[in-house]
Amino acid sequence: MKMTEEMIARSEALAPWLTEIRRSIHRFPETGWLEMRTSALIAKALTDMGYEVITGRAACAEAARMGVPDEKTTQAHLDRVLQYGCEEDYLTDDMREGFTGVVGVLRCGEGPTVGMRFDIDALGMQECAENTHRPMREGFASVNPGMMHACGHDAHAAIGLGTAKVLAAMKDQLHGTVKLLFQPGEEGARGAKAMVAAGHLDDVDVFIGSHVAPTDSLDDGDVTPGTYGSLATTKYDVTFRGLAAHAGGFPEKGRNALLAAASAVLALHAIPRHSAGESRINVGTLHAGTGRNVIPDEAVMQLEVRGETTEINSYMAASAEAACRGAAAMYGCTVEMRKMGEAEGQHSDEALLARIADVVRRDLPHLKVSSIENAKNWGSEDISVMMNRVQERGGQATYMRVMTPMASAQHTVRFDLNERVLVTGVQVFCAAAMDALR
Amino acid sequence: MKMTEEMIARSEALAPWLTEIRRSIHRFPETGWLEMRTSALIAKALTDMGYEVITGRAACAEAARMGVPDEKTTQAHLDRVLQYGCEEDYLTDDMREGFTGVVGVLRCGEGPTVGMRFDIDALGMQECAENTHRPMREGFASVNPGMMHACGHDAHAAIGLGTAKVLAAMKDQLHGTVKLLFQPGEEGARGAKAMVAAGHLDDVDVFIGSHVAPTDSLDDGDVTPGTYGSLATTKYDVTFRGLAAHAGGFPEKGRNALLAAASAVLALHAIPRHSAGESRINVGTLHAGTGRNVIPDEAVMQLEVRGETTEINSYMAASAEAACRGAAAMYGCTVEMRKMGEAEGQHSDEALLARIADVVRRDLPHLKVSSIENAKNWGSEDISVMMNRVQERGGQATYMRVMTPMASAQHTVRFDLNERVLVTGVQVFCAAAMDALR
Amino acid sequence: MKMTEEMIARSEALAPWLTEIRRSIHRFPETGWLEMRTSALIAKALTDMGYEVITGRAACAEAARMGVPDEKTTQAHLDRVLQYGCEEDYLTDDMREGFTGVVGVLRCGEGPTVGMRFDIDALGMQECAENTHRPMREGFASVNPGMMHACGHDAHAAIGLGTAKVLAAMKDQLHGTVKLLFQPGEEGARGAKAMVAAGHLDDVDVFIGSHVAPTDSLDDGDVTPGTYGSLATTKYDVTFRGLAAHAGGFPEKGRNALLAAASAVLALHAIPRHSAGESRINVGTLHAGTGRNVIPDEAVMQLEVRGETTEINSYMAASAEAACRGAAAMYGCTVEMRKMGEAEGQHSDEALLARIADVVRRDLPHLKVSSIENAKNWGSEDISVMMNRVQERGGQATYMRVMTPMASAQHTVRFDLNERVLVTGVQVFCAAAMDALR
Amino acid sequence: MKMTEEMIARSEALAPWLTEIRRSIHRFPETGWLEMRTSALIAKALTDMGYEVITGRAACAEAARMGVPDEKTTQAHLDRVLQYGCEEDYLTDDMREGFTGVVGVLRCGEGPTVGMRFDIDALGMQECAENTHRPMREGFASVNPGMMHACGHDAHAAIGLGTAKVLAAMKDQLHGTVKLLFQPGEEGARGAKAMVAAGHLDDVDVFIGSHVAPTDSLDDGDVTPGTYGSLATTKYDVTFRGLAAHAGGFPEKGRNALLAAASAVLALHAIPRHSAGESRINVGTLHAGTGRNVIPDEAVMQLEVRGETTEINSYMAASAEAACRGAAAMYGCTVEMRKMGEAEGQHSDEALLARIADVVRRDLPHLKVSSIENAKNWGSEDISVMMNRVQERGGQATYMRVMTPMASAQHTVRFDLNERVLVTGVQVFCAAAMDALR
Repeated sequence: MKMTEEMIARSEALAPWLTEIRRSIHRFPETGWLEMRTSALIAKALTDMGYEVITGRAACAEAARMGVPDEKTTQAHLDRVLQYGCEEDYLTDDMREGFTGVVGVLRCGEGPTVGMRFDIDALGMQECAENTHRPMREGFASVNPGMMHACGHDAHAAIGLGTAKVLAAMKDQLHGTVKLLFQPGEEGARGAKAMVAAGHLDDVDVFIGSHVAPTDSLDDGDVTPGTYGSLATTKYDVTFRGLAAHAGGFPEKGRNALLAAASAVLALHAIPRHSAGESRINVGTLHAGTGRNVIPDEAVMQLEVRGETTEINSYMAASAEAACRGAAAMYGCTVEMRKMGEAEGQHSDEALLARIADVVRRDLPHLKVSSIENAKNWGSEDISVMMNRVQERGGQATYMRVMTPMASAQHTVRFDLNERVLVTGVQVFCAAAMDALR
Repeated sequence: MKMTEEMIARSEALAPWLTEIRRSIHRFPETGWLEMRTSALIAKALTDMGYEVITGRAACAEAARMGVPDEKTTQAHLDRVLQYGCEEDYLTDDMREGFTGVVGVLRCGEGPTVGMRFDIDALGMQECAENTHRPMREGFASVNPGMMHACGHDAHAAIGLGTAKVLAAMKDQLHGTVKLLFQPGEEGARGAKAMVAAGHLDDVDVFIGSHVAPTDSLDDGDVTPGTYGSLATTKYDVTFRGLAAHAGGFPEKGRNALLAAASAVLALHAIPRHSAGESRINVGTLHAGTGRNVIPDEAVMQLEVRGETTEINSYMAASAEAACRGAAAMYGCTVEMRKMGEAEGQHSDEALLARIADVVRRDLPHLKVSSIENAKNWGSEDISVMMNRVQERGGQATYMRVMTPMASAQHTVRFDLNERVLVTGVQVFCAAAMDALR
Repeated sequence: MKMTEEMIARSEALAPWLTEIRRSIHRFPETGWLEMRTSALIAKALTDMGYEVITGRAACAEAARMGVPDEKTTQAHLDRVLQYGCEEDYLTDDMREGFTGVVGVLRCGEGPTVGMRFDIDALGMQECAENTHRPMREGFASVNPGMMHACGHDAHAAIGLGTAKVLAAMKDQLHGTVKLLFQPGEEGARGAKAMVAAGHLDDVDVFIGSHVAPTDSLDDGDVTPGTYGSLATTKYDVTFRGLAAHAGGFPEKGRNALLAAASAVLALHAIPRHSAGESRINVGTLHAGTGRNVIPDEAVMQLEVRGETTEINSYMAASAEAACRGAAAMYGCTVEMRKMGEAEGQHSDEALLARIADVVRRDLPHLKVSSIENAKNWGSEDISVMMNRVQERGGQATYMRVMTPMASAQHTVRFDLNERVLVTGVQVFCAAAMDALR
Repeated sequence: MKMTEEMIARSEALAPWLTEIRRSIHRFPETGWLEMRTSALIAKALTDMGYEVITGRAACAEAARMGVPDEKTTQAHLDRVLQYGCEEDYLTDDMREGFTGVVGVLRCGEGPTVGMRFDIDALGMQECAENTHRPMREGFASVNPGMMHACGHDAHAAIGLGTAKVLAAMKDQLHGTVKLLFQPGEEGARGAKAMVAAGHLDDVDVFIGSHVAPTDSLDDGDVTPGTYGSLATTKYDVTFRGLAAHAGGFPEKGRNALLAAASAVLALHAIPRHSAGESRINVGTLHAGTGRNVIPDEAVMQLEVRGETTEINSYMAASAEAACRGAAAMYGCTVEMRKMGEAEGQHSDEALLARIADVVRRDLPHLKVSSIENAKNWGSEDISVMMNRVQERGGQATYMRVMTPMASAQHTVRFDLNERVLVTGVQVFCAAAMDALR
């Protein structure tokens, strides 16, 4: 119990520091594969705490990165980072090219390896500029146009560093290895696969991730120790290319990429439901054409499919590819489909989540475990790719929720959260890790 | 002038006989490639008049026939023909298999070859059964369910035999060769190509066809000596094949042929207009599926494209093929496209039609030549294939109209015509032929 | 136990008679609202056993019948029935007009009312004519072209009459009321609503239905005492009406009903999935147009929607109506949607199915209860409408399965079953009913 | 002939000045309803020459303006104009609000009124920035990002001012009224209607317009005195509005504006061809949705229809409206259609164009009149609205072409022309006007 008391005391003492970090990251949000300042900040902090730190191409395998911005965007963001200021000594060349993401390792002798995942990327949204919005009022609203931490990954990063700090301070009482994965590009399911491909999950015995969730959700506790049912997903950017022509003068000379895209949109949404479980399809955006009187020679759409299982998702993805390719052929166009993100079906191990529930009840009695311990999750999360890797090698994995009041729903421009969740998050991660490394 | 007077007198005398033949054919209408009784009747008549007669596979090249009914239909019609009665001695084995169509040749010494086309097939319609309809009242309405001479090809056949008779009787005054082509399967543009493929147009110097037309049309005469602008066309039967599945139980196991067909229908109608002239597309029928709760595994459609020129029609046909093939691919289906008919763009030679106009004015002063000598024709006619063959070999061709009052529009169930047109038709053909063989 | 032994003995003794009835009905299959001979046969049998018998408009409320054949079809079937022979004294005027369905009531003093449903209609399929098919070989294959008992409702009817006979014979030992519902038009979900609308479920305390099921299904027993999850459904016949025009001559004058239908087909299949549970959509058939060169002025489709709950089905139905109406408007067409059938979501009462499981284990130890007592059912069944009515009035309902080897899957042309299931069925119904009326 | 010689001499002398004006306007291109600097420049020049000058709301009736940019865009352009510099004394308040366009009137005593139209707007294109492009090399390339004179309206404006100058100088020799219309917003067919609605065409007896055209076109001369067949057109901006929802979480809660737009796109392109003449449809751009995983709640498209006659265009427009409204209804969305531009069918008066041909042959023998005097024009031009107004009031109108070598096709980023055409244009307009005012 002594150990637990020490952990609680240390984490409570971190509260101001956690808030400061969260706000620093909130103020300079960075979308997927642009988390340069964030990664440098984390790398420096972990180094200072005594962690072995892995970054750049060693953290994320180059070939497995998806949905990477173009060079121009990357360069422009780097300029912005340097202008704003960052831990420049830790901003490696790789990071400057967009190889973000950090792994921190703390070796504490013989014992299992406990992996913990913290995602760090922001969303491509414009934060609310009204004074009623606390980040605005208190001066930590986003300074990056069109980027915002509206999902709470700023909090996740802070929780990760808090967990790192407590565990490092109590290193002598642990037996095994602590491995912290600060993942880029969770939004769009773009980053986890690259960390898996770099081998960082291959030696993990116990794997824990978490997401902040609203207290007004169906959950009635402070912590849900596991989730299931998040949908496998594949994200595509699809470009139809045809031939422009003057619509009045020579309509027969065009190859209409918009007609191809419109036919594809209908066929995609008409992919048959699957009897084995839930499936989803969405063409979220479509942009086509250059002018009213020109036959559109290009149409670009962002789409995603999902499935209750990886198999159902594969069925959806294969059907989507057929729909797009057929649609292009109908109108003499070509089509290019780029995979922009991917998550798998996922379930938390019953044994692990039950154990964490027990640990929370025993060690953190001020926190309430949700009465439904294993919550249904309808979104998609590429932590699934990490969990599946751990599980297929015989390890255990769970994806938790830590509840907090929120000012507005996640993914909205007025999102904010009660920063008490930072301490709560650190305590839950530390309690679970210490139980495994006892 | 003497010769003309003889021709007029002979043709006037044929009036009762022409009516009898027209009514005999009207009473037993036969659709494309089933014109067995009609062909036997024609073959006997021509033989009796002294013509060399070519029938069966020699008249229509087997490989070039399109839109041929299945064997069962052919056999059933043969049974019907035999039961009703026909010139059985002239009903050859080929005819019994559906190789209908007759060519009659009359050699009259040195001189050019004049080809004349008479189409002989009926439509797939049910004739009006009311007593106000003259064919019903006077006992010559169709006895074949679902078949009717509603376009006047019964009159064309009679005019052809009348022309044959007059010319045979005046053989000694002619110099050259008379070639009469009694063509099967004009409806659906299915038969002309087979006669062309058999070589029957290859030696024709002057080629004349005609169609009866209503007096209330834009034409203000009894005869229009030429037409232009009839649309080239291609007819397809398209079959999409997928995979059936229980729509409630296993929707993902189906491959939905109806979805493929529906996408194709939209894409077909969306084929861009052509700046060089008129084009058309129609999916006239679609039949899909076997039951409400089964995913349709087959969808069959009848479509046609048209174009003001053969090139525009080819553009439409190529686009239609792409649309159907792409649509099948979209839904994991296969598609089969069978060409069921084909006509080309067409124009009457100015020199020939001017000459015929002069002949009519000179020799048949009781008939009025239309003031617009070269009428616009918006339908499709496979006589175009014959005309183009003659013209590409240096011959001249024209497609005329002979006007007559009609009881109701062509292709309607109350169609009937004033039988005076039979004599008029014979006179125009004979005058034109005699002018060429003078 | 004595009572049970008597019931078993009586039902075993009925085996030859049950087979005879089943085969008599199998030989003369009758699709929905045409079950004239079948209803007369049942009415006579129940009358002979001493049941009060309700038929015609009193059995099925006229306004609530769905998917009723047209008068001509009904009259033709009546002619066929009279020609084949039937219990003509029991073929009432109502039955002759297609008001089929029979209710039999046996009053056995004070006590609850036990309702039992037996569906009696055949499918619109052509039975296999090969000698390897037992009904063919043994002379009881369908004599009605295009109709076949391929789902086992012939067995259901026989089981119903067997149950009636055993219970009537043991009337003195029962306390309460036996109510047997011989339902027409289960295929297409067309008949149950009419029996409910006539009030026959309003006094039922315990309600039991059953379907024969293959032994090679996931079930591992002879009896599954309950099912859940069958999908609510609505069936529509949709007719789009436009305006015909010659596709070559005046395309702008048409209003293309096929284009409207094709757009509707795509929009229907694109109705968004529902997050609350499974949904289905199928356009099973589409027939449009009259000829290749005529713009289609009519397109008729048979469609169905389904939902895991009645609410989801309502969402699908409302979306389908919007899709069809909008599609018609797009092309200047009109649309008529006729509701042809309807079933609701359904679940068997846990208490009732547990009780039946106990009864079977106790009283019918030669039968095995499935280890999963409450099977998932993916089809749609309008018994749901009856169950929901009973349950909403406070009664209990269950829909069981009785397993039997089958020669081929249900709804296939070689379907046949092991007739031992007739005795098994009678025993399960009787045991359940006697337990409730003890 | 003296008069002609004077006109030729005066116009030749203007060559350097014409080039200067054309390049000044080319350097500061202004798209429709933003032609502020251009209008002020023209107003000053005409005033200096002694013309009565009408501008602002008096030149263009407010209610009839189409495709007007929003206030923010207008204000931003005004700021740019003021910053760049302009004839600020002539930049009226109306012009600053976007009421561009200028009418100049020169009264020369009794006689007919000759109206001449010169369009002055630029295209929304980015001019080529390479040094091989003469405007770049010689310093008169566009300084306005995304705007370019790529159709030659800069030359038209210069020709208008040159014509004004010559005619003003020779005022004493003219009898009647010269009316010059400098029209805004010809691109997109947005401006002519507003000048017509302001009444400026109501007293015009002879109306002349012109467009520069490439010498490598089918025309073989320097001047084509008339054109015909330009297509009537209507331009729409169409906005579909639905309801956003999380595509993974609650797909059934969305109303998918993209599905509505996709269905509309297909239905629009499937509007049947018209038998009476050419028609066109194009959906040139479509922009929909906000993010990959959000159901699109808005889809905006720019479309246009065209027709060989005003009637055919009306048929296309009515069909397009039905398609869009029906598509919205299919998916529970709303739709707004804003008319952004409109042009009518048009033909040049034979008598007028023959007269101009004669004048050119007689007075400008160094110029060649095209052998086909009345050229087919496949584009759409809202000068048609002016011509039709003049013609319906009994006046005569023609729309000419003046040919010149071009560096690249019109509407391409490397467009440039041989400035000799400026003098040629002035001569043709002056010769035609002087002939009418003789």
